[in-house]
Amino acid sequence: MRAAFHEDLEAVFTDLADICDSVEQAVAIATTALLQADAGLAEQVISGDARIDAAREAVEERCFELLTLQAPVAGDLRVVVAALRMVSDLERMGDLSVHVAKIARLRVPNIAVPEGARATISRMAEVAEAMVTRTARIIRGRDVTEASALAIDDEEMDRLRRSNFAEMLGDEWSYGIEAAVDIALLGRYYERIADHAVSVANRVVYVVTGEKPHLADA
Amino acid sequence: MRAAFHEDLEAVFTDLADICDSVEQAVAIATTALLQADAGLAEQVISGDARIDAAREAVEERCFELLTLQAPVAGDLRVVVAALRMVSDLERMGDLSVHVAKIARLRVPNIAVPEGARATISRMAEVAEAMVTRTARIIRGRDVTEASALAIDDEEMDRLRRSNFAEMLGDEWSYGIEAAVDIALLGRYYERIADHAVSVANRVVYVVTGEKPHLADA
Repeated sequence: MRAAFHEDLEAVFTDLADICDSVEQAVAIATTALLQADAGLAEQVISGDARIDAAREAVEERCFELLTLQAPVAGDLRVVVAALRMVSDLERMGDLSVHVAKIARLRVPNIAVPEGARATISRMAEVAEAMVTRTARIIRGRDVTEASALAIDDEEMDRLRRSNFAEMLGDEWSYGIEAAVDIALLGRYYERIADHAVSVANRVVYVVTGEKPHLADA
Repeated sequence: MRAAFHEDLEAVFTDLADICDSVEQAVAIATTALLQADAGLAEQVISGDARIDAAREAVEERCFELLTLQAPVAGDLRVVVAALRMVSDLERMGDLSVHVAKIARLRVPNIAVPEGARATISRMAEVAEAMVTRTARIIRGRDVTEASALAIDDEEMDRLRRSNFAEMLGDEWSYGIEAAVDIALLGRYYERIADHAVSVANRVVYVVTGEKPHLADA
């Protein structure tokens, strides 16, 4: 019974890592769509989100089966509930990539990101994508050390967000209101992707260091 | 066993409704802080959020106890998991109220919302608050009819968001970049409060009817 449970749980974590890979792809493609004003790539992210949603449902069903058939208690129960939350975070990160893609699509053939914000937004996108990649590795390897590195990425994201505001509110901003509104929202979306990545990683830390530490090598 | 389970579950729903009341207060006070540039009220929302977070944790603990002691299956299991998700949504609504309060505080002694956006932002705030009030009633009464009324509120929110963009991007916008950035983010925060309210209500529909709701995730 215990062995079967841990095998099933392992399968759930593999699924979570796979979804995280899909999210990373979505973030990367949405960013390319944004910076190159590529409507085709934007559409790809928007229509591709249904696959992430379906994968989320599959994980949820697996978790419900685990809860029903194995009725785990204590630490094991909390791990399954943590997995349910992780998949919500991941799905939401997919939605946020769709939001980025929609802003890209709205401004085609123009590029939504003006020159004066390009460096900051590009870097925010890079950091967000790297955080998602790292999160997939954290899920796969249950690597608590790597989770703490994510906090450093997140601090860079906070600094970038502040730079981003400073650019828009500085005297040199010559791109008007529309670009500022787009950039404010894009900054918010990348920041939220980063927040959710941290949230997923924190749940892995909890799973590894919490009441059932043997799960680390499960 | 069954009777005890349903009694405990009832207590969880009462707690959820109480948290929803606190969220409604947070939204209302944050809005007053915003429209009157009242730093004291803004602080009240920001520091008061810890109470909502604590209430969320208490509900989570109750749910874990329910899962552990009663090991519910099938529908009952799904109701407990739905409750866990509802409390996440509610906590997030509290966080979004804090975001509103922080923009209010940042601009004191000025009012963050300029005349040209005041009517729309006020109405968005009213609709969001009304949706939270309605959601508390839906949780308390398990009233599926009222949940469908929430969809109509949500449509008004979508229209307001569009008006809000039109105002900022119209020729008459004379309030500059900073105000536009604030308004874009405020609009987003109220819209997200509405989304989470719909999400909570959909979960109540699911609990009552067993039908999996189509979540409005924006």
